[in-house]
Amino acid sequence: MSRSSASIAADGDARLQRLRVVLVETSLPANIGASARAMHTMGLANLVLVQPARFPDADARALASGATDVLDRALVVPTLDAALAGTQMSIALTARPREFAGAVLPLRSAAAAAIDMAVSADVAIVFGTEMSGLTNDDIARCTTVSTIATNPAYQSLNVAAAVQVVAWELRVAAVGDRVWSAPRFEPATHEDIEALHAHARRTLSALRFLDPARPRRLMPRLRRLFARAGLEREEVNILRGILTRIDALTGQRDDR
Amino acid sequence: MSRSSASIAADGDARLQRLRVVLVETSLPANIGASARAMHTMGLANLVLVQPARFPDADARALASGATDVLDRALVVPTLDAALAGTQMSIALTARPREFAGAVLPLRSAAAAAIDMAVSADVAIVFGTEMSGLTNDDIARCTTVSTIATNPAYQSLNVAAAVQVVAWELRVAAVGDRVWSAPRFEPATHEDIEALHAHARRTLSALRFLDPARPRRLMPRLRRLFARAGLEREEVNILRGILTRIDALTGQRDDR
Repeated sequence: MSRSSASIAADGDARLQRLRVVLVETSLPANIGASARAMHTMGLANLVLVQPARFPDADARALASGATDVLDRALVVPTLDAALAGTQMSIALTARPREFAGAVLPLRSAAAAAIDMAVSADVAIVFGTEMSGLTNDDIARCTTVSTIATNPAYQSLNVAAAVQVVAWELRVAAVGDRVWSAPRFEPATHEDIEALHAHARRTLSALRFLDPARPRRLMPRLRRLFARAGLEREEVNILRGILTRIDALTGQRDDR
Repeated sequence: MSRSSASIAADGDARLQRLRVVLVETSLPANIGASARAMHTMGLANLVLVQPARFPDADARALASGATDVLDRALVVPTLDAALAGTQMSIALTARPREFAGAVLPLRSAAAAAIDMAVSADVAIVFGTEMSGLTNDDIARCTTVSTIATNPAYQSLNVAAAVQVVAWELRVAAVGDRVWSAPRFEPATHEDIEALHAHARRTLSALRFLDPARPRRLMPRLRRLFARAGLEREEVNILRGILTRIDALTGQRDDR
Protein backbone atom coordinates (compact mmCIF):
# COMPACT_ATOMS: atom_id res chain seq x y z
CA MET A 1 0.00 0.00 0.00
CA SER A 2 2.77 2.42 -0.89
CA ARG A 3 1.51 5.64 -2.40
CA SER A 4 2.94 8.78 -3.81
CA SER A 5 0.13 11.19 -3.43
CA ALA A 6 1.86 14.54 -3.26
CA SER A 7 0.29 15.40 -6.58
CA ILE A 8 -3.21 15.12 -5.15
CA ALA A 9 -2.88 17.07 -1.98
CA ALA A 10 -0.07 19.41 -2.97
CA ASP A 11 -0.06 20.22 0.66
CA GLY A 12 3.49 20.52 1.74
CA ASP A 13 3.00 18.32 4.78
CA ALA A 14 4.27 14.80 4.22
CA ARG A 15 2.66 13.63 7.45
CA LEU A 16 -0.83 14.09 6.03
CA GLN A 17 0.21 11.78 3.19
CA ARG A 18 0.96 8.95 5.62
CA LEU A 19 -2.60 8.96 6.92
CA ARG A 20 -5.27 6.72 5.44
CA VAL A 21 -9.00 6.96 6.05
CA VAL A 22 -10.64 3.55 6.33
CA LEU A 23 -14.41 3.27 5.87
CA VAL A 24 -15.83 -0.09 6.94
CA GLU A 25 -18.87 -1.48 5.12
CA THR A 26 -20.31 1.88 4.14
CA SER A 27 -23.91 1.50 2.94
CA LEU A 28 -24.46 4.71 1.00
CA PRO A 29 -22.17 5.63 -1.91
CA ALA A 30 -23.07 9.28 -1.27
CA ASN A 31 -21.29 9.01 2.07
CA ILE A 32 -18.18 7.66 0.38
CA GLY A 33 -18.22 10.59 -2.04
CA ALA A 34 -18.82 13.17 0.67
CA SER A 35 -16.01 11.60 2.73
CA ALA A 36 -13.63 11.89 -0.22
CA ARG A 37 -14.53 15.55 -0.55
CA ALA A 38 -14.08 16.09 3.19
CA MET A 39 -10.67 14.43 3.07
CA HIS A 40 -9.51 16.40 0.08
CA THR A 41 -10.47 19.76 1.62
CA MET A 42 -8.07 18.97 4.45
CA GLY A 43 -5.27 17.53 2.32
CA LEU A 44 -5.85 13.83 3.00
CA ALA A 45 -5.52 11.64 -0.06
CA ASN A 46 -5.63 7.97 0.93
CA LEU A 47 -9.05 6.32 1.14
CA VAL A 48 -9.51 2.60 1.82
CA LEU A 49 -12.94 0.97 1.61
CA VAL A 50 -13.64 -2.30 3.40
CA GLN A 51 -16.49 -4.09 1.61
CA PRO A 52 -18.49 -1.03 0.56
CA ALA A 53 -22.09 -1.84 -0.41
CA ARG A 54 -21.58 -0.21 -3.83
CA PHE A 55 -18.40 1.16 -5.31
CA PRO A 56 -17.64 2.72 -7.71
CA ASP A 57 -20.97 4.50 -7.96
CA ALA A 58 -22.47 7.60 -9.58
CA ASP A 59 -23.72 8.96 -6.24
CA ALA A 60 -20.23 8.74 -4.79
CA ARG A 61 -18.85 10.68 -7.76
CA ALA A 62 -21.57 13.32 -7.52
CA LEU A 63 -21.02 13.92 -3.81
CA ALA A 64 -17.23 13.95 -4.18
CA SER A 65 -17.59 17.18 -6.13
CA GLY A 66 -14.07 17.93 -7.42
CA ALA A 67 -12.45 15.31 -5.22
CA THR A 68 -12.84 12.45 -7.68
CA ASP A 69 -9.07 11.89 -7.64
CA VAL A 70 -9.45 10.57 -4.11
CA LEU A 71 -12.16 8.17 -5.29
CA ASP A 72 -10.15 7.07 -8.32
CA ARG A 73 -7.24 6.17 -6.08
CA ALA A 74 -9.36 4.55 -3.35
CA LEU A 75 -8.52 0.95 -2.51
CA VAL A 76 -11.27 -1.61 -2.01
CA VAL A 77 -10.27 -4.43 0.35
CA PRO A 78 -12.10 -7.44 1.78
CA THR A 79 -11.15 -7.08 5.46
CA LEU A 80 -10.17 -4.52 8.06
CA ASP A 81 -6.84 -6.34 8.46
CA ALA A 82 -6.10 -5.72 4.80
CA ALA A 83 -6.99 -2.06 5.25
CA LEU A 84 -4.63 -1.75 8.21
CA ALA A 85 -1.72 -3.59 6.55
CA GLY A 86 1.51 -1.69 7.05
CA THR A 87 0.12 0.77 9.58
CA GLN A 88 1.80 1.24 12.94
CA MET A 89 -1.07 3.13 14.48
CA SER A 90 -4.78 2.76 13.84
CA ILE A 91 -7.43 4.91 15.46
CA ALA A 92 -10.95 3.51 15.75
CA LEU A 93 -13.65 6.17 15.94
CA THR A 94 -16.61 5.19 18.06
CA ALA A 95 -19.59 7.18 19.27
CA ARG A 96 -20.13 5.32 22.53
CA PRO A 97 -18.10 3.60 25.22
CA ARG A 98 -17.05 0.04 24.40
CA GLU A 99 -15.91 -2.76 26.58
CA PHE A 100 -12.48 -2.84 24.96
CA ALA A 101 -11.93 0.84 25.06
CA GLY A 102 -10.13 1.22 28.34
CA ALA A 103 -8.19 4.22 27.11
CA VAL A 104 -10.20 6.53 24.91
CA LEU A 105 -8.27 9.49 23.60
CA PRO A 106 -10.16 12.72 23.08
CA LEU A 107 -10.12 13.49 19.36
CA ARG A 108 -7.77 16.43 19.63
CA SER A 109 -5.20 14.33 21.50
CA ALA A 110 -5.66 11.43 19.07
CA ALA A 111 -5.07 13.75 16.10
CA ALA A 112 -1.88 15.08 17.67
CA ALA A 113 -0.68 11.52 18.35
CA ALA A 114 -1.49 10.47 14.78
CA ILE A 115 0.46 13.37 13.31
CA ASP A 116 3.42 12.66 15.60
CA MET A 117 3.36 9.01 14.55
CA ALA A 118 3.04 9.90 10.86
CA VAL A 119 6.50 11.44 10.90
CA SER A 120 7.80 7.90 10.47
CA ALA A 121 4.86 5.51 10.12
CA ASP A 122 1.59 4.93 8.32
CA VAL A 123 -1.51 5.69 10.37
CA ALA A 124 -5.13 4.66 9.74
CA ILE A 125 -8.27 6.37 10.96
CA VAL A 126 -11.15 3.90 10.96
CA PHE A 127 -14.87 4.68 10.64
CA GLY A 128 -17.73 2.19 10.94
CA THR A 129 -21.06 1.73 9.23
CA GLU A 130 -23.82 4.32 9.14
CA MET A 131 -26.16 2.23 11.26
CA SER A 132 -23.99 0.68 13.94
CA GLY A 133 -20.44 1.99 13.69
CA LEU A 134 -17.55 -0.38 14.28
CA THR A 135 -17.94 -3.81 15.89
CA ASN A 136 -16.08 -4.65 19.08
CA ASP A 137 -13.92 -6.98 17.00
CA ASP A 138 -13.01 -4.14 14.61
CA ILE A 139 -12.13 -1.90 17.55
CA ALA A 140 -9.96 -4.56 19.14
CA ARG A 141 -7.85 -4.71 15.96
CA CYS A 142 -6.97 -1.02 16.25
CA THR A 143 -4.23 0.40 18.46
CA THR A 144 -6.18 3.37 19.69
CA VAL A 145 -9.77 4.38 20.31
CA SER A 146 -11.08 7.91 19.95
CA THR A 147 -14.40 9.64 19.79
CA ILE A 148 -15.96 12.82 18.50
CA ALA A 149 -17.61 14.48 21.47
CA THR A 150 -21.24 15.22 20.64
CA ASN A 151 -24.42 16.50 22.22
CA PRO A 152 -25.37 13.61 24.51
CA ALA A 153 -29.00 14.13 23.53
CA TYR A 154 -28.27 13.70 19.80
CA GLN A 155 -25.20 11.80 18.72
CA SER A 156 -26.29 11.07 15.15
CA LEU A 157 -23.20 12.29 13.34
CA ASN A 158 -23.23 11.44 9.64
CA VAL A 159 -20.16 9.38 8.69
CA ALA A 160 -18.93 11.93 6.14
CA ALA A 161 -19.45 14.68 8.72
CA ALA A 162 -17.36 12.63 11.13
CA VAL A 163 -14.65 12.26 8.49
CA GLN A 164 -14.80 16.05 8.00
CA VAL A 165 -14.30 16.78 11.70
CA VAL A 166 -11.48 14.27 12.05
CA ALA A 167 -9.76 15.45 8.85
CA TRP A 168 -10.00 19.02 10.16
CA GLU A 169 -8.40 18.06 13.48
CA LEU A 170 -5.63 16.19 11.67
CA ARG A 171 -4.94 19.15 9.43
CA VAL A 172 -4.83 21.60 12.32
CA ALA A 173 -2.53 19.22 14.23
CA ALA A 174 -0.22 19.08 11.19
CA VAL A 175 -0.19 22.59 9.78
CA GLY A 176 -2.25 24.79 12.11
CA ASP A 177 -5.48 26.57 11.31
CA ARG A 178 -4.25 29.77 9.70
CA VAL A 179 -4.26 29.80 5.90
CA TRP A 180 -3.58 33.21 4.68
CA SER A 181 -1.96 36.17 6.29
CA ALA A 182 -3.98 39.34 6.56
CA PRO A 183 -3.38 41.90 3.83
CA ARG A 184 -0.42 44.07 4.74
CA PHE A 185 -1.65 47.23 6.35
CA GLU A 186 0.80 49.69 7.81
CA PRO A 187 0.20 50.34 11.48
CA ALA A 188 0.28 53.94 12.62
CA THR A 189 3.33 55.12 14.57
CA HIS A 190 3.23 56.58 18.05
CA GLU A 191 3.73 60.09 16.60
CA ASP A 192 0.85 59.62 14.11
CA ILE A 193 -1.45 58.69 16.97
CA GLU A 194 -0.36 61.48 19.32
CA ALA A 195 -0.80 64.00 16.51
CA LEU A 196 -4.30 62.64 15.89
CA HIS A 197 -5.28 63.04 19.53
CA ALA A 198 -3.86 66.55 19.68
CA HIS A 199 -5.74 67.45 16.52
CA ALA A 200 -8.96 65.90 17.84
CA ARG A 201 -8.63 67.85 21.08
CA ARG A 202 -8.31 71.19 19.20
CA THR A 203 -11.12 70.40 16.79
CA LEU A 204 -13.55 69.16 19.44
CA SER A 205 -12.82 72.25 21.54
CA ALA A 206 -13.51 74.56 18.61
CA LEU A 207 -16.66 72.55 17.97
CA ARG A 208 -17.54 73.21 21.62
CA PHE A 209 -18.09 69.47 22.15
CA LEU A 210 -15.11 69.39 24.49
CA ASP A 211 -14.83 71.99 27.24
CA PRO A 212 -11.10 72.26 28.06
CA ALA A 213 -12.05 73.57 31.51
CA ARG A 214 -14.22 70.50 32.17
CA PRO A 215 -12.94 67.82 29.81
CA ARG A 216 -14.59 64.93 31.68
CA ARG A 217 -13.47 61.56 30.29
CA LEU A 218 -13.89 62.36 26.60
CA MET A 219 -10.28 62.22 25.43
CA PRO A 220 -9.38 59.12 27.47
CA ARG A 221 -12.44 57.36 26.03
CA LEU A 222 -11.38 58.22 22.49
CA ARG A 223 -7.87 57.06 23.28
CA ARG A 224 -9.21 53.77 24.58
CA LEU A 225 -11.37 53.25 21.51
CA PHE A 226 -8.56 53.91 19.04
CA ALA A 227 -6.02 51.95 21.04
CA ARG A 228 -8.32 48.93 20.98
CA ALA A 229 -8.84 49.27 17.25
CA GLY A 230 -5.12 49.34 16.55
CA LEU A 231 -5.04 52.25 14.11
CA GLU A 232 -3.48 51.98 10.69
CA ARG A 233 -1.61 54.90 9.16
CA GLU A 234 -4.21 55.33 6.42
CA GLU A 235 -7.00 55.41 9.01
CA VAL A 236 -5.21 58.18 10.88
CA ASN A 237 -5.08 60.15 7.64
CA ILE A 238 -8.82 59.62 7.09
CA LEU A 239 -9.67 60.73 10.63
CA ARG A 240 -7.47 63.81 10.36
CA GLY A 241 -9.10 64.58 7.01
CA ILE A 242 -12.48 64.59 8.74
CA LEU A 243 -11.15 66.80 11.54
CA THR A 244 -9.69 69.25 9.00
CA ARG A 245 -13.07 69.47 7.25
CA ILE A 246 -14.71 70.26 10.58
CA ASP A 247 -11.99 72.83 11.27
CA ALA A 248 -12.99 74.61 8.05
CA LEU A 249 -16.52 75.00 9.42
CA THR A 250 -15.39 76.28 12.82
CA GLY A 251 -12.75 78.55 11.40
CA GLN A 252 -10.01 76.63 13.15
CA ARG A 253 -6.70 76.27 11.33
CA ASP A 254 -4.90 72.98 11.51
CA ASP A 255 -1.47 73.98 12.74
CA ARG A 256 -0.05 70.54 13.23
CA MET B 1 -35.37 36.62 18.50
CA SER B 2 -35.56 35.44 22.06
CA ARG B 3 -35.48 31.70 22.38
CA SER B 4 -35.65 29.11 25.08
CA SER B 5 -34.00 26.18 23.49
CA ALA B 6 -32.73 24.21 26.44
CA SER B 7 -35.25 21.51 25.60
CA ILE B 8 -33.68 20.89 22.20
CA ALA B 9 -30.07 20.70 23.10
CA ALA B 10 -30.34 19.53 26.69
CA ASP B 11 -26.72 20.29 26.76
CA GLY B 12 -25.94 21.86 30.04
CA ASP B 13 -24.00 24.70 28.48
CA ALA B 14 -26.02 27.89 28.27
CA ARG B 15 -23.37 29.50 26.08
CA LEU B 16 -24.12 27.17 23.18
CA GLN B 17 -27.72 28.33 23.41
CA ARG B 18 -26.72 31.93 22.76
CA LEU B 19 -25.18 31.06 19.42
CA ARG B 20 -27.12 31.21 16.19
CA VAL B 21 -26.09 29.77 12.85
CA VAL B 22 -27.03 32.04 9.93
CA LEU B 23 -27.16 30.57 6.41
CA VAL B 24 -27.37 33.21 3.69
CA GLU B 25 -29.27 32.38 0.47
CA THR B 26 -28.67 28.67 0.62
CA SER B 27 -29.55 27.05 -2.73
CA LEU B 28 -29.98 23.40 -1.80
CA PRO B 29 -32.48 22.39 0.88
CA ALA B 30 -30.36 19.29 1.49
CA ASN B 31 -27.59 21.56 2.76
CA ILE B 32 -30.01 23.24 5.18
CA GLY B 33 -31.05 19.82 6.50
CA ALA B 34 -27.48 18.57 6.81
CA SER B 35 -26.52 21.81 8.57
CA ALA B 36 -29.36 21.33 11.07
CA ARG B 37 -28.09 17.82 11.77
CA ALA B 38 -24.51 19.08 12.12
CA MET B 39 -25.65 21.76 14.58
CA HIS B 40 -27.72 19.39 16.65
CA THR B 41 -24.88 16.87 17.02
CA MET B 42 -22.85 19.62 18.68
CA GLY B 43 -25.66 21.05 20.80
CA LEU B 44 -26.45 24.15 18.72
CA ALA B 45 -30.16 24.85 18.36
CA ASN B 46 -30.70 28.21 16.68
CA LEU B 47 -30.80 28.29 12.88
CA VAL B 48 -31.62 31.44 10.91
CA LEU B 49 -32.10 31.33 7.14
CA VAL B 50 -31.70 34.47 5.04
CA GLN B 51 -33.74 34.06 1.85
CA PRO B 52 -33.28 30.33 1.34
CA ALA B 53 -34.11 29.17 -2.19
CA ARG B 54 -36.62 26.64 -0.82
CA PHE B 55 -37.75 26.19 2.76
CA PRO B 56 -39.41 24.21 4.25
CA ASP B 57 -38.59 21.32 1.95
CA ALA B 58 -38.66 17.53 1.94
CA ASP B 59 -34.94 17.27 1.12
CA ALA B 60 -34.08 19.42 4.10
CA ARG B 61 -36.14 17.18 6.38
CA ALA B 62 -34.59 14.01 4.95
CA LEU B 63 -31.03 15.24 5.44
CA ALA B 64 -31.76 16.58 8.92
CA SER B 65 -32.22 12.99 10.04
CA GLY B 66 -33.45 13.24 13.64
CA ALA B 67 -32.67 16.95 13.90
CA THR B 68 -36.02 18.15 12.57
CA ASP B 69 -36.58 20.14 15.78
CA VAL B 70 -33.86 22.50 14.64
CA LEU B 71 -35.62 22.91 11.27
CA ASP B 72 -39.01 23.39 12.88
CA ARG B 73 -37.63 26.21 15.00
CA ALA B 74 -35.58 27.79 12.21
CA LEU B 75 -36.32 31.43 11.45
CA VAL B 76 -36.60 32.65 7.87
CA VAL B 77 -35.68 36.32 7.46
CA PRO B 78 -35.38 38.65 4.47
CA THR B 79 -31.99 40.23 5.23
CA LEU B 80 -28.71 39.57 6.97
CA ASP B 81 -29.43 42.56 9.23
CA ALA B 82 -32.59 40.85 10.43
CA ALA B 83 -30.62 37.68 11.06
CA LEU B 84 -28.06 39.57 13.12
CA ALA B 85 -30.60 41.57 15.15
CA GLY B 86 -29.72 41.50 18.83
CA THR B 87 -26.29 39.95 18.38
CA GLN B 88 -23.21 41.58 19.85
CA MET B 89 -20.77 39.50 17.89
CA SER B 90 -21.11 38.08 14.40
CA ILE B 91 -18.50 35.91 12.76
CA ALA B 92 -18.43 35.77 8.95
CA LEU B 93 -16.91 32.60 7.55
CA THR B 94 -15.06 33.08 4.31
CA ALA B 95 -12.84 30.74 2.31
CA ARG B 96 -10.57 33.38 0.83
CA PRO B 97 -9.02 36.70 1.79
CA ARG B 98 -11.31 39.71 1.35
CA GLU B 99 -10.59 43.35 1.09
CA PHE B 100 -12.45 44.15 4.30
CA ALA B 101 -10.95 41.37 6.29
CA GLY B 102 -8.01 43.11 7.86
CA ALA B 103 -8.08 40.91 10.92
CA VAL B 104 -8.97 37.31 10.17
CA LEU B 105 -9.18 35.11 13.25
CA PRO B 106 -8.16 31.48 12.87
CA LEU B 107 -11.24 29.36 13.49
CA ARG B 108 -10.07 27.99 16.82
CA SER B 109 -9.49 31.50 18.16
CA ALA B 110 -12.80 32.71 16.74
CA ALA B 111 -14.64 29.85 18.43
CA ALA B 112 -13.00 30.66 21.77
CA ALA B 113 -13.94 34.33 21.37
CA ALA B 114 -17.52 33.43 20.46
CA ILE B 115 -17.91 31.23 23.53
CA ASP B 116 -16.42 33.92 25.77
CA MET B 117 -18.82 36.47 24.32
CA ALA B 118 -21.79 34.11 24.65
CA VAL B 119 -21.51 34.25 28.43
CA SER B 120 -23.44 37.51 28.21
CA ALA B 121 -24.41 38.16 24.58
CA ASP B 122 -25.94 36.60 21.48
CA VAL B 123 -23.45 35.57 18.83
CA ALA B 124 -24.06 34.72 15.16
CA ILE B 125 -21.92 32.55 12.91
CA VAL B 126 -22.61 33.43 9.28
CA PHE B 127 -22.20 31.17 6.23
CA GLY B 128 -22.63 32.22 2.59
CA THR B 129 -24.01 30.55 -0.50
CA GLU B 130 -22.77 27.28 -1.97
CA MET B 131 -21.43 28.94 -5.10
CA SER B 132 -19.82 32.15 -3.94
CA GLY B 133 -19.91 32.39 -0.16
CA LEU B 134 -20.61 35.74 1.46
CA THR B 135 -20.50 39.05 -0.39
CA ASN B 136 -18.11 41.78 0.71
CA ASP B 137 -21.16 43.72 1.89
CA ASP B 138 -22.30 40.77 4.05
CA ILE B 139 -18.83 40.47 5.55
CA ALA B 140 -18.66 44.18 6.31
CA ARG B 141 -21.84 43.86 8.43
CA CYS B 142 -20.20 41.29 10.70
CA THR B 143 -17.92 42.11 13.61
CA THR B 144 -15.39 39.38 12.94
CA VAL B 145 -14.06 37.37 10.03
CA SER B 146 -12.83 33.82 10.31
CA THR B 147 -11.94 30.99 7.99
CA ILE B 148 -11.67 27.24 7.97
CA ALA B 149 -8.12 26.43 6.92
CA THR B 150 -8.21 24.03 3.98
CA ASN B 151 -5.93 22.34 1.51
CA PRO B 152 -4.89 25.28 -0.70
CA ALA B 153 -5.20 22.99 -3.73
CA TYR B 154 -8.84 22.13 -2.97
CA GLN B 155 -10.91 24.48 -0.87
CA SER B 156 -14.33 23.19 -1.89
CA LEU B 157 -15.82 22.69 1.54
CA ASN B 158 -19.53 21.88 1.43
CA VAL B 159 -21.55 24.41 3.46
CA ALA B 160 -22.98 21.76 5.80
CA ALA B 161 -19.49 20.34 6.26
CA ALA B 162 -18.32 23.85 7.16
CA VAL B 163 -21.16 24.15 9.68
CA GLN B 164 -20.07 20.78 11.11
CA VAL B 165 -16.46 21.88 11.59
CA VAL B 166 -17.45 25.21 13.12
CA ALA B 167 -20.06 23.62 15.39
CA TRP B 168 -17.43 21.13 16.53
CA GLU B 169 -14.96 23.90 17.35
CA LEU B 170 -17.63 25.82 19.24
CA ARG B 171 -18.57 22.74 21.24
CA VAL B 172 -14.97 21.95 22.12
CA ALA B 173 -14.43 25.59 23.12
CA ALA B 174 -17.49 25.40 25.38
CA VAL B 175 -17.37 21.95 26.93
CA GLY B 176 -14.16 20.27 25.77
CA ASP B 177 -13.84 17.18 23.65
CA ARG B 178 -14.13 14.40 26.18
CA VAL B 179 -17.60 12.83 26.45
CA TRP B 180 -17.39 9.79 28.57
CA SER B 181 -14.92 8.70 31.13
CA ALA B 182 -13.19 5.40 30.57
CA PRO B 183 -14.69 2.45 32.40
CA ARG B 184 -13.29 2.27 35.90
CA PHE B 185 -10.45 -0.19 35.94
CA GLU B 186 -8.38 -0.68 39.05
CA PRO B 187 -4.72 0.01 38.49
CA ALA B 188 -2.26 -2.51 39.91
CA THR B 189 -0.33 -1.52 43.02
CA HIS B 190 3.44 -1.40 43.28
CA GLU B 191 3.43 -4.69 45.22
CA ASP B 192 1.25 -6.39 42.57
CA ILE B 193 3.73 -5.41 39.91
CA GLU B 194 6.85 -6.38 41.84
CA ALA B 195 5.31 -9.77 42.64
CA LEU B 196 4.55 -10.25 38.95
CA HIS B 197 8.12 -9.52 37.94
CA ALA B 198 9.50 -11.84 40.64
CA HIS B 199 7.13 -14.57 39.48
CA ALA B 200 8.05 -14.02 35.83
CA ARG B 201 11.76 -14.24 36.69
CA ARG B 202 11.28 -17.61 38.44
CA THR B 203 9.04 -19.00 35.73
CA LEU B 204 11.22 -17.89 32.83
CA SER B 205 14.28 -19.33 34.57
CA ALA B 206 12.56 -22.68 35.08
CA LEU B 207 11.48 -22.50 31.44
CA ARG B 208 15.18 -21.95 30.64
CA PHE B 209 14.25 -18.86 28.60
CA LEU B 210 16.08 -16.70 31.13
CA ASP B 211 19.59 -17.66 32.20
CA PRO B 212 20.08 -16.10 35.68
CA ALA B 213 23.83 -16.20 35.07
CA ARG B 214 23.47 -14.27 31.83
CA PRO B 215 20.14 -12.43 32.11
CA ARG B 216 20.93 -9.96 29.34
CA ARG B 217 18.22 -7.27 29.12
CA LEU B 218 15.19 -9.54 29.30
CA MET B 219 13.69 -8.47 32.62
CA PRO B 220 14.28 -4.74 32.09
CA ARG B 221 12.57 -5.04 28.68
CA LEU B 222 9.56 -6.73 30.23
CA ARG B 223 9.48 -4.08 32.95
CA ARG B 224 9.54 -1.38 30.30
CA LEU B 225 6.73 -3.01 28.35
CA PHE B 226 4.44 -3.41 31.35
CA ALA B 227 5.27 0.00 32.74
CA ARG B 228 4.28 1.57 29.45
CA ALA B 229 1.03 -0.39 29.37
CA GLY B 230 0.07 0.74 32.87
CA LEU B 231 -1.06 -2.60 34.26
CA GLU B 232 -4.44 -3.11 35.83
CA ARG B 233 -4.89 -5.41 38.82
CA GLU B 234 -6.97 -7.87 36.80
CA GLU B 235 -4.31 -8.00 34.09
CA VAL B 236 -1.68 -8.86 36.70
CA ASN B 237 -3.92 -11.72 37.82
CA ILE B 238 -4.27 -12.96 34.25
CA LEU B 239 -0.52 -12.82 33.64
CA ARG B 240 0.23 -14.62 36.91
CA GLY B 241 -2.38 -17.25 35.96
CA ILE B 242 -0.48 -17.87 32.74
CA LEU B 243 2.82 -18.08 34.64
CA THR B 244 1.32 -20.55 37.13
CA ARG B 245 0.13 -22.75 34.27
CA ILE B 246 3.64 -22.73 32.83
CA ASP B 247 5.00 -23.54 36.30
CA ALA B 248 2.83 -26.68 36.31
CA LEU B 249 4.61 -27.85 33.15
CA THR B 250 8.09 -27.11 34.45
CA GLY B 251 7.41 -28.53 37.91
CA GLN B 252 8.01 -25.13 39.47
CA ARG B 253 5.90 -24.28 42.51
CA ASP B 254 4.57 -20.75 42.82
CA ASP B 255 5.78 -19.74 46.28
CA ARG B 256 4.75 -16.15 46.16
